[in-house]
Amino acid sequence: MLTKQEHEIYCVANGAVVTPKGFKAAGVHAGLRYIKKDLGVIVCDVPASCAAVYTQSHFQAAPLKVTQESIAVEQKLQAIVVNSACANACTGEQGLKDAYEMRELCALQFGLPSHYVAVASTGVIGEFLPMEKIREGIKKLQPSVTEESAHAFQTAILTTDTVMKQACYQTTIEGKTVTIGGAAKGSGMIHPNMATMLAFITTDANISSPVLQEALRSITDLSFNQITVDGDTSTNDMVVVMASGLAETTELTPRHPEWNKFYDALKKTCEDLAKQIAKDGEGATKLIEVRVSGAVTDDDAKRIAKQIVGSNLVKTAVYGADANWGRIIGAIGYADATVNPDCVDIALGDIVMLKASEPQPFSEEEATAYLQNHEIMIHVDLHLGNGTGVAWGCDLTYDYVKINASYRT
Amino acid sequence: MLTKQEHEIYCVANGAVVTPKGFKAAGVHAGLRYIKKDLGVIVCDVPASCAAVYTQSHFQAAPLKVTQESIAVEQKLQAIVVNSACANACTGEQGLKDAYEMRELCALQFGLPSHYVAVASTGVIGEFLPMEKIREGIKKLQPSVTEESAHAFQTAILTTDTVMKQACYQTTIEGKTVTIGGAAKGSGMIHPNMATMLAFITTDANISSPVLQEALRSITDLSFNQITVDGDTSTNDMVVVMASGLAETTELTPRHPEWNKFYDALKKTCEDLAKQIAKDGEGATKLIEVRVSGAVTDDDAKRIAKQIVGSNLVKTAVYGADANWGRIIGAIGYADATVNPDCVDIALGDIVMLKASEPQPFSEEEATAYLQNHEIMIHVDLHLGNGTGVAWGCDLTYDYVKINASYRT
Repeated sequence: MLTKQEHEIYCVANGAVVTPKGFKAAGVHAGLRYIKKDLGVIVCDVPASCAAVYTQSHFQAAPLKVTQESIAVEQKLQAIVVNSACANACTGEQGLKDAYEMRELCALQFGLPSHYVAVASTGVIGEFLPMEKIREGIKKLQPSVTEESAHAFQTAILTTDTVMKQACYQTTIEGKTVTIGGAAKGSGMIHPNMATMLAFITTDANISSPVLQEALRSITDLSFNQITVDGDTSTNDMVVVMASGLAETTELTPRHPEWNKFYDALKKTCEDLAKQIAKDGEGATKLIEVRVSGAVTDDDAKRIAKQIVGSNLVKTAVYGADANWGRIIGAIGYADATVNPDCVDIALGDIVMLKASEPQPFSEEEATAYLQNHEIMIHVDLHLGNGTGVAWGCDLTYDYVKINASYRT
Repeated sequence: MLTKQEHEIYCVANGAVVTPKGFKAAGVHAGLRYIKKDLGVIVCDVPASCAAVYTQSHFQAAPLKVTQESIAVEQKLQAIVVNSACANACTGEQGLKDAYEMRELCALQFGLPSHYVAVASTGVIGEFLPMEKIREGIKKLQPSVTEESAHAFQTAILTTDTVMKQACYQTTIEGKTVTIGGAAKGSGMIHPNMATMLAFITTDANISSPVLQEALRSITDLSFNQITVDGDTSTNDMVVVMASGLAETTELTPRHPEWNKFYDALKKTCEDLAKQIAKDGEGATKLIEVRVSGAVTDDDAKRIAKQIVGSNLVKTAVYGADANWGRIIGAIGYADATVNPDCVDIALGDIVMLKASEPQPFSEEEATAYLQNHEIMIHVDLHLGNGTGVAWGCDLTYDYVKINASYRT
């Protein structure tokens, strides 16, 4: 089932990382966790162009270092192996050794050069990978193109996420269908860990690695980098894209007449996954979307949007269905961006609360009713220029505190 | 009762803003709130040298503008009038007019030029001051030097703070006693508002306004600017110091041989108030102090300390008595500072958890017991240089969510 989007981008219902041509997936229970699947793989039929972005944390976990090394060799990937339950972060020499071995095992299993394999981990910090389980688990990986295998992969990468995250978009380039599929995990807590975000994207687009890298970097800034659950950044965050080229168009570059279709489809996939992550933030009951317009620059707008959606006071107000625009003003107030304090508009959905920085009369009842929705939209217009930006987050609830305070009690 | 501190600084138990020579205070119920006192004043017998620092928010409330105007004229103040319940923020022209009138009324009441009067407000954003009540209230202000009147002032400036904040330190300069007293309010929530921090400090030191301003700015960066309750900054934050000069020493400047005593006493007063504010953060059950050493610069150390103490994941872990050093690593990881990820030490109180970035064995039981305390100390050593920094905050609890989500339900 397809739903039409802007630029003739179609959303593929139930589409996943196996939908683009050339990709298979698998997920198994390797015993790192008690019952749930905990080890997954995506394999491509051919060496794929690739791109990746990584956490900005000073402490990059071992698998990120190994993945960067793999990509550096030829800028090609053919498999990504991922485990949950253990982040393999802050594990020193041994951790690096384990990540290399995990890569090697995956390469052997699928008959690939080891530098065609990327490695990702999420879970406990400061503990070593249980390599015996990883060794046995990798042997059990039997990738296929079925919806079931995509689900198995999507499940294997989760920690305390409450739902799987998948997205798939299609467009037509040179009359041929180009597909992009993605899987992600969001903020989950396994002691002692912090939120980790992982996203794996596949596409059959014909595109070189440098061009894909450039597109991914710019799109990440508009999607994954614009979500916040609690302002904390993990040691393991990573987004990896593989492009098989099997859609068989001519090579896509920004000079290709239909480039925008590919770019927008990739953006749509990332945005969709990002929103799913935000919505499934720990303890969250509501997705909050903040749209800022009229900023001097897009960067200013993005910064302000993220500041608002990251404010604990805004997040608790949304949880409590309290139309508390003073807290939005507060969050705008300390953003590192150009603001004229006398000409700000704020609206909650369609309800205008502030116009040219003057409070507007509104129906409290209507506002409270609006805030009962599961998706809340906050609009801010700064009336200074043409800069726009969007950010996504979630409300701050009792359950956030519960999940993060009482995990071990 | 005096307690000795470093540099012969003594803590004066029960000392307050009326303890330094030349200062009186008062606080009354003007009817802005239902029952509690809501209007207060500090008056000096003489025109006092003064210094002030203000919120960095783009939206500075009207009273801050008026106070800045007052000080600009002669750099002297003789009275500070403060109301709670209404912040007089985002109130446009009318708000500014009201703040001027409040200043004027106070000047008339005490026979002062209006530019000797500072104005401060805290409470609801976007509502006008109930001027009739302010007018009547100011007439009732009868400042005196009693402990009772200091308490009345301290109470009048609170919003949902659960306790009064006062501090007083003394030192001896040229054989004469120099006293510094302070009152503060912290994060309280009155709909629709965000945390506001106000601090009023009095001293009988003989010091010029520019020198005092310089000292206040540097000390604020080490005290009030190093606390965080929820990362939100108010439109109304302000710290004001008045110096009567009545201790009758020669004029204090950094070249005075006993300058450090004055500086340290002022710092001690600000730090003490800052810690009281952090400890009484909304819903807080514990004060968290983070000490960072071995940074390349003091700024790096301060930034990292504040990042740790501001992390929701660290705050919830402390609430849940969970010795979760992975979250501290997470917070250090995204600090904008120089960090070598291979040589970080982390300790919780005296319990070493990480040494040269390697996890250390420790007793979970002992760590959990330590985290039951009401004051929690986190030490981080970066082993890079001599930079040090401290920050204070509080745990994130169910009550924080309750106070901020369910205020209107």
